[in-house]
Amino acid sequence: HTRTVMVSEIFGPTIQGEGALIGKPTVFVRTGGCDYRCSWCDSLYAVLPEHKGEWQAMDSAQIFAEVRRLSGDTPLLVTLSGGNPAIQPLEELIELGHQYGYTFAIETQGSVAQPWFAMLDYLTLSPKPPSSKQVTRWERLERCIVNATNTQPNHEIQICLKIVIFNEEDYAYARYVAEQYPAFPMYLQAGNHTPPQTADKIDISGILDRMDWLIQRTIADHWYGVTVLPQLHTLLWGNKRGV
Amino acid sequence: HTRTVMVSEIFGPTIQGEGALIGKPTVFVRTGGCDYRCSWCDSLYAVLPEHKGEWQAMDSAQIFAEVRRLSGDTPLLVTLSGGNPAIQPLEELIELGHQYGYTFAIETQGSVAQPWFAMLDYLTLSPKPPSSKQVTRWERLERCIVNATNTQPNHEIQICLKIVIFNEEDYAYARYVAEQYPAFPMYLQAGNHTPPQTADKIDISGILDRMDWLIQRTIADHWYGVTVLPQLHTLLWGNKRGV
Ligand code: SF4
Ligand code: SF4
Repeated sequence: HTRTVMVSEIFGPTIQGEGALIGKPTVFVRTGGCDYRCSWCDSLYAVLPEHKGEWQAMDSAQIFAEVRRLSGDTPLLVTLSGGNPAIQPLEELIELGHQYGYTFAIETQGSVAQPWFAMLDYLTLSPKPPSSKQVTRWERLERCIVNATNTQPNHEIQICLKIVIFNEEDYAYARYVAEQYPAFPMYLQAGNHTPPQTADKIDISGILDRMDWLIQRTIADHWYGVTVLPQLHTLLWGNKRGV
Repeated sequence: HTRTVMVSEIFGPTIQGEGALIGKPTVFVRTGGCDYRCSWCDSLYAVLPEHKGEWQAMDSAQIFAEVRRLSGDTPLLVTLSGGNPAIQPLEELIELGHQYGYTFAIETQGSVAQPWFAMLDYLTLSPKPPSSKQVTRWERLERCIVNATNTQPNHEIQICLKIVIFNEEDYAYARYVAEQYPAFPMYLQAGNHTPPQTADKIDISGILDRMDWLIQRTIADHWYGVTVLPQLHTLLWGNKRGV
């Protein structure tokens, strides 16, 4: 009954570079395939079908064996990213990892809700703002939250929202999402315009300018309950993969 | 009965650049005076007696009035830093701020324990590693924790440890502290060697190198429960003051 997962890459341990778990050591399992095509996607190699040849169909035992090897058999946080990891059958991997003390975080845009979200330790919902050129289906985002909060009595999940911001319109979108979901911590992330293929020429000053603007923008609004962060790995390592 | 607080600067709102509250909007109240003289102190203007002329003796009402002005009367996180804020009488300020919905975080080296630590919302204890050339008095660090956890029934405090790391000896010190206090989240921060007076020539590549080393070091040890962060404000703005 084992279903395979499309895997783009498994790497780490490194530290999580963004969001609520920033700075935490983690192994990334990046799945291949996405139902979105964000204008500024920085991981098209895990999105576009023409990269399928670089992906591997792996079952949960194979994936977890690699996670254990990389982590030296010591339990840690596993981050499920993509692409959109929510379109993969990941429940077996989570169940297997939990047996060995590993914890699981996922980041997904909230367009596909899975019952197994309730098994996660951390769920980051990252609906895409207007600059992405994608359309948010709010009822699906809502379904993700409903599913994730339907946990077993002995299990706790931390849910947060993260929104990438490039401009004023994106900012207005983030404010709207925060109003809809006041109970969940919100993270704003300054966007990175650098095309991923130009890792060495990363636009650090553009990123820092947008970060500055974003901080000033939230403060001007007295929006003090939000958390504003850059992508640390971009500042540290540019767009390099596998670090 | 009002006792005055030695204030070096009050500024913000900006975002917290380090530790557990990284990215959170906050107003900083930096007090003047310190019982330590860390070799790499980046805020000597709030430490050395020869800067006393730049500090202001303010009472709690005056400080809080300035915090309210800066925050546009909207409650937010107030970060008490220094110098060593623990040598100041800050209980009145905390009490006053709480009445208006403001929350309070402090960062202190753990050399002076105050009963009012129990009133704080966040306590970051940041004992100084060997590279600082200071000597840790462990019984005082312990006393800080005992005091901080002696809270009123309706009040919760979050305690964490933060250690600045420059070298292998500092790293060993951090491991020792983590062993003594496994219950508290620990944050490792890559050190910044740049002398504060040379804000424009900040040694970004040195900071990034130490950050890389620190990540690799913790991962080589399978120390996955720790959080490794840079000083975000240094990466974003160098050693500039007041941002
Ligand atoms: S949802 Fe994420 S992975 Fe998919 S296209 Fe958008 S940015 Fe890329
Ligand atoms: S404890 Fe902090 S403020 Fe005091 S000398 Fe050391 S680094 Fe500077």
